[in-house]
Amino acid sequence: MTQGAMAELGRRAKAASRVIATASTGAKDEALHASADLLVDRAPEVLDANAKDVEKARADGVAPTVVDRLRLDDARIEGMANGLRKVAALPDPVGEIVEGRTRPNGLVIEKVRVPLGVVAIVYENRPNVTSDAFGLCLKSGNAAFLRGSSGALQSNIAIATVLREGLTKAGLPADALLLVEDTSYEAATEFMRLRDSIDCLIPRGGPSLIKAVLDNATVPYVIDGDGNCHVYVDEHADLDQALDILVNAKTQRPSVCNAAESLVVHEAVAREFLPRAARALEGVELVGDDASRAIVDTVAPATDDDFATEFLALKMSVAVVPSLDAAIDHVNRYGTGHTEAICTTDLHTAERFQREVDAAAVVVNASTRFTDGEEFGFGAEIGISTQKLHARGPMGLRELTTTKYVVHGEGQIRT
Amino acid sequence: MTQGAMAELGRRAKAASRVIATASTGAKDEALHASADLLVDRAPEVLDANAKDVEKARADGVAPTVVDRLRLDDARIEGMANGLRKVAALPDPVGEIVEGRTRPNGLVIEKVRVPLGVVAIVYENRPNVTSDAFGLCLKSGNAAFLRGSSGALQSNIAIATVLREGLTKAGLPADALLLVEDTSYEAATEFMRLRDSIDCLIPRGGPSLIKAVLDNATVPYVIDGDGNCHVYVDEHADLDQALDILVNAKTQRPSVCNAAESLVVHEAVAREFLPRAARALEGVELVGDDASRAIVDTVAPATDDDFATEFLALKMSVAVVPSLDAAIDHVNRYGTGHTEAICTTDLHTAERFQREVDAAAVVVNASTRFTDGEEFGFGAEIGISTQKLHARGPMGLRELTTTKYVVHGEGQIRT
Repeated sequence: MTQGAMAELGRRAKAASRVIATASTGAKDEALHASADLLVDRAPEVLDANAKDVEKARADGVAPTVVDRLRLDDARIEGMANGLRKVAALPDPVGEIVEGRTRPNGLVIEKVRVPLGVVAIVYENRPNVTSDAFGLCLKSGNAAFLRGSSGALQSNIAIATVLREGLTKAGLPADALLLVEDTSYEAATEFMRLRDSIDCLIPRGGPSLIKAVLDNATVPYVIDGDGNCHVYVDEHADLDQALDILVNAKTQRPSVCNAAESLVVHEAVAREFLPRAARALEGVELVGDDASRAIVDTVAPATDDDFATEFLALKMSVAVVPSLDAAIDHVNRYGTGHTEAICTTDLHTAERFQREVDAAAVVVNASTRFTDGEEFGFGAEIGISTQKLHARGPMGLRELTTTKYVVHGEGQIRT
Repeated sequence: MTQGAMAELGRRAKAASRVIATASTGAKDEALHASADLLVDRAPEVLDANAKDVEKARADGVAPTVVDRLRLDDARIEGMANGLRKVAALPDPVGEIVEGRTRPNGLVIEKVRVPLGVVAIVYENRPNVTSDAFGLCLKSGNAAFLRGSSGALQSNIAIATVLREGLTKAGLPADALLLVEDTSYEAATEFMRLRDSIDCLIPRGGPSLIKAVLDNATVPYVIDGDGNCHVYVDEHADLDQALDILVNAKTQRPSVCNAAESLVVHEAVAREFLPRAARALEGVELVGDDASRAIVDTVAPATDDDFATEFLALKMSVAVVPSLDAAIDHVNRYGTGHTEAICTTDLHTAERFQREVDAAAVVVNASTRFTDGEEFGFGAEIGISTQKLHARGPMGLRELTTTKYVVHGEGQIRT
């Protein structure tokens, strides 16, 4: 990429964002539908490009699971198109008057929801993110400035070309979707430092991507982070219910961030619950502390690292604790601030856990798997924030906006 | 500072934050009042320490205005104490249920306002920030982790000692206020990278501090940035009113971020308005474009840099524009996203300016000087955010909080 080319892309994104920010809901929805229709119509072109990426990945010896995430087919393209149509059906967050007041001096102050401007997404090998991120950014009035991985470049270019035509069809600027085609590390670093252009960066990927953002970004960002989620089975738990919740949280989809990674059991019920849990979690590798191993001998010894690890696999750490305080301490020590569940029938215990556990979502008597934009009723999500600034937990359309104060006076000056 | 000492301070701040986060409003207010009383009682001790800082600053040849900001006296200490008492009287933001819903599957989801945890402030030579930041952090349930400058170190240590005693008196952990006493650059960098301990960093200072944060911080931060604020006098302005607003915005307190730095005038009224403005702004150095200089010959030529500069002094840039579009473009190009004012009597013009200008606050027919936590009715402010994430505009107690989702189930699992 030539010197200044990235900055120029940023300027184009910023210019388009000014137009998109005040576009009508109707125009944005029209662009979403046009893009969805075009994606389906032009599927052969997208699939051809994707085939090149898949072939290259295979030739490079990329892991089959990664190749699978990269591969598109008609059903997946239909899924992307339907995602855009679904976003079109969601309410437009822009223009909501969040609050307002009249001050004693007569100034009327309104806080109005407005788009962020240019939302940048850095992501890994999933080409569907190109379309999903575009849809959410557009509906929330933002320009989408995307930087995917080299491994999905041909797919991303083909998808972006089609989506840009969808924008044009609806009379909106094509630059409301810009894809960075230079996938070098240097270009990524330059991208993350475009403070004049990028209003918010959302990295979608693993620990090395997050580290690159922390080390290099100077633009504001929201971290979509790890989920080292716990299920705490309290001494007052309904153990049958706790067992269902545990199994669901661990095994229903082990590879996602809201899956449980650790079981914490109160010692008063450990002797009864742990053997049942071990049987119900057959096929899950369990590693635990001495107390849990004394009860279930198939539990292997856990290191401190095990308790801190998001396995994203059929593996789980187990700890026995002597008290609610110890449970809360364990969860706050090893958790990543994503989702923490308690199983209890005692009101005071539930209330203390809710209050004292420091996480985006604290769940009482339900599976950790519910922390999700769809399940929370947001209609869609761009990610799940594990940081505390701006957005915490699932991020939907509203989390892709900011606010602006609009102040109405009649000549007031300050004295 | 020995290896690991900073991390240990961070751990202490985090541990204290867990206690403060669930402290009652009564306990927090008691600590604020106790701290205020102690500040006044122990003023001689604080003034002695401050005298050492002032003496050192003088010996080092520090500029008189900077020495003045550093110097404390009984009235300033009284002011700090009253600041704490005022914060005690404000409503506690913690525990507000921001919203909630019941999902079709019966899950009840509440979004509850909770403290951020550990709020870190890096600041320059004003010792009153030690007390002000402590008060706002405590009331919002956060531990305050402070890193002042070397020039105010003795003052800051004396103030922090007193405030920590106030916490202890109210039965709260003294570590809810921790001051980093190593004021080296290396320590500041280490501080900004304590991701395990710091939930939010707010830098309070000039461009070099902001740059250090952008370059080094890995903790989440909110930038309290520049204010290159404009007053746009539209062709439909009430020119008498516009003149009052302009003079107030520029001269009432030129050294603050919400003071105006640039005047933009529609060409239809420039010939009438500019000579009046130049007379009313006597004592203000004006630099402008060719069109403005053709009308008022005392206006010196402006460079592009002048239009982009926050002077914080009796200097102002002037531009004449042919249209509302050109005015909006000029403001969006040179503004820093702080506060932008329009003077107009035309409704459609006002609405377009409000909508299309990209700033934390857009003001119609009033002075830019109103963008302020007190003037907006927040009771106090920790700063004014010019970024779009988390908080935009004046930041009060609420902006020192985050939210947590609390999910209540009856055994729900995901299918």
